[in-house]
Amino acid sequence: MGRIITLLTDFGNRDAYAGVMKGVILGINPQAAIVDITHEVEPQNILQAAYVLKTASQYFPENTVHVIVVDPGVGTDRKAVLLRTPKALFVAPDNGVLSYVYHEGKVLEMISLIHPEYWLQPVSRTFHGRDIFAPVAAHLSLGVPPHRLGETLKSINLLADCRPMVSADNTIYGKVIHIDRFGNLITNISVDDLPTAEIEVKIKGRSIGGLSATYAEGGELLALLGSDGHLEIGVRNGSAGSLLGATYEDVVEIKTETAI
Amino acid sequence: MGRIITLLTDFGNRDAYAGVMKGVILGINPQAAIVDITHEVEPQNILQAAYVLKTASQYFPENTVHVIVVDPGVGTDRKAVLLRTPKALFVAPDNGVLSYVYHEGKVLEMISLIHPEYWLQPVSRTFHGRDIFAPVAAHLSLGVPPHRLGETLKSINLLADCRPMVSADNTIYGKVIHIDRFGNLITNISVDDLPTAEIEVKIKGRSIGGLSATYAEGGELLALLGSDGHLEIGVRNGSAGSLLGATYEDVVEIKTETAI
Amino acid sequence: MGRIITLLTDFGNRDAYAGVMKGVILGINPQAAIVDITHEVEPQNILQAAYVLKTASQYFPENTVHVIVVDPGVGTDRKAVLLRTPKALFVAPDNGVLSYVYHEGKVLEMISLIHPEYWLQPVSRTFHGRDIFAPVAAHLSLGVPPHRLGETLKSINLLADCRPMVSADNTIYGKVIHIDRFGNLITNISVDDLPTAEIEVKIKGRSIGGLSATYAEGGELLALLGSDGHLEIGVRNGSAGSLLGATYEDVVEIKTETAI
Repeated sequence: MGRIITLLTDFGNRDAYAGVMKGVILGINPQAAIVDITHEVEPQNILQAAYVLKTASQYFPENTVHVIVVDPGVGTDRKAVLLRTPKALFVAPDNGVLSYVYHEGKVLEMISLIHPEYWLQPVSRTFHGRDIFAPVAAHLSLGVPPHRLGETLKSINLLADCRPMVSADNTIYGKVIHIDRFGNLITNISVDDLPTAEIEVKIKGRSIGGLSATYAEGGELLALLGSDGHLEIGVRNGSAGSLLGATYEDVVEIKTETAI
Repeated sequence: MGRIITLLTDFGNRDAYAGVMKGVILGINPQAAIVDITHEVEPQNILQAAYVLKTASQYFPENTVHVIVVDPGVGTDRKAVLLRTPKALFVAPDNGVLSYVYHEGKVLEMISLIHPEYWLQPVSRTFHGRDIFAPVAAHLSLGVPPHRLGETLKSINLLADCRPMVSADNTIYGKVIHIDRFGNLITNISVDDLPTAEIEVKIKGRSIGGLSATYAEGGELLALLGSDGHLEIGVRNGSAGSLLGATYEDVVEIKTETAI
Repeated sequence: MGRIITLLTDFGNRDAYAGVMKGVILGINPQAAIVDITHEVEPQNILQAAYVLKTASQYFPENTVHVIVVDPGVGTDRKAVLLRTPKALFVAPDNGVLSYVYHEGKVLEMISLIHPEYWLQPVSRTFHGRDIFAPVAAHLSLGVPPHRLGETLKSINLLADCRPMVSADNTIYGKVIHIDRFGNLITNISVDDLPTAEIEVKIKGRSIGGLSATYAEGGELLALLGSDGHLEIGVRNGSAGSLLGATYEDVVEIKTETAI
């Protein structure tokens, strides 16, 4: 097991929540190298977190332990899960936040985390990041094998909308799943969803035309494949989010002449 | 002495201030493991910082050095202090920011930091985080004993309003001391301040009723004991801060039938 | 070579971009100690980043590798460069972001980064922070000598406006290059630019008078030399940014009786 542990949450940077998780981890494994992916996921936006996790986790070395805490169901009976791929370990609530990494990696093991001897006691009803996910990740980073932490799961919850829909007339209906700092609108449409033929991208009633190669090319409003393979909509030297008044869940439509 | 150093400031994440402190620390102790608690304390809000410090510090391993720089009096004659408990070392301006950890821990040693040979020279009048607190913390993490850094103090400044007031008619008057990212309003009323009898919580003219067990239960507006033992006011799937237009210092009133 | 790598970007804290760079670095050098200077540089504000880099980098130990990614020209033919001083290594796009460290340090080596064997493959057109700057920094932290990474450069691009202008009548015309969290306006006027005689500072039509020694002294609006040697404009217990409605690029004028 590696010693890198990443954190991805919607806790923000204003509170002590992320710091507390780091304290718990370092108390169990003082050698852990903790890396923040981000704590600024929109509160309770599971799909956004799933996307950010996918883009980030692929660049970390083998055996990294990724902890994701975007957890609107904390305190209810939602499961806490561990997913293992050849590349990494993921510890998260079972609410779909692992959808992308589940679909993209080869899943070697799925565990329902039910062994409280690896948790912080007493377990609160509001902060499982501190009480369950952080200590489990720390034990994993010390080499505790996944099966010790709970029992095998046959399936986990996956988000239906992590991929776009395709209609009978070959229109692709995707949506905005992440708005980055520059106001670029990242969609759930990936390079694999696109036809090889010419396409026409539409958002909020505006037609953008086809794909541009870089932000320096194309018109004011442009569509391109981002560095993570997702279709994104941007504005040259500006913010597509501001220009369009775009928000999470806004629909992005792709029309093409040919069958997909 | 341990090698973990935490930082808690109101410097924000936009400036180099926190990064500069890390550079100074690593120049003295390249092995220090530096952890950010938060740099987003509301500017100069000492009571908020005191609360965040309490909630975070209890989860760090023994001998962690906590550095707190919320310091409106920098450049005046306010003291710089070191407080040692069985659990940790705290380095901060003497302005009350250590109130909670003082009240909750067993204080083993209090030092007025007056020995400039452990500081960065020259000492500026505006940035003691860089010039005094960071280097002192780094030296502590290397094992320099506290008494070498200054002289023993008999007392430090404590904030009167870190606890609520109780009136003659058994009403508890607390206030909002922290607003978290989800808009939950955390108060200076802790589980120890509450009577065992039924209570009624009021804020900004609205009555909330008694305590709920989780955010998923209770009405729209609800009061519960947070994972840190403080009474907080929240909204199910929403922001109490936005709903109430609440701000720091807003009064929270608790009525009860019985004597406290 | 040292093992500390700092990151300074305009990526914000909402996205995975900075986390991805850390993953790439740790994949190449698992022992790297990565420190965030800030990711909240105003999008594409090269001069602000240059200033923040200067204030931060001087406090890091020798052989620190500083990575700066404020890169509006990514995907065009702008160079990627490495600058070595006796104190540190700087890896950045060649757009002027190294202006202050170039002027202040003794430059020992300048390299155009053109050897793709030290990059992540394939190189995207939109994210050189991940594909070029992070891996180059990681290799440097492992001891790869700079000349292996590319070919020697005779010059790099420098920003004309990193220093103020002086007019024929001895008026100094500077501007706001950074607004800190407290609303203090930091200018491109440094202590070396100021005359020894009495000065009068003006901004947005308001006269501030001369220099104050601390924020606790002086009038409501005051000018002082910050802890980094730059002239800054502040408000006692308040925000000069809010009071003046100030923005980046606002002109600051300094009049003096004597020749400079």
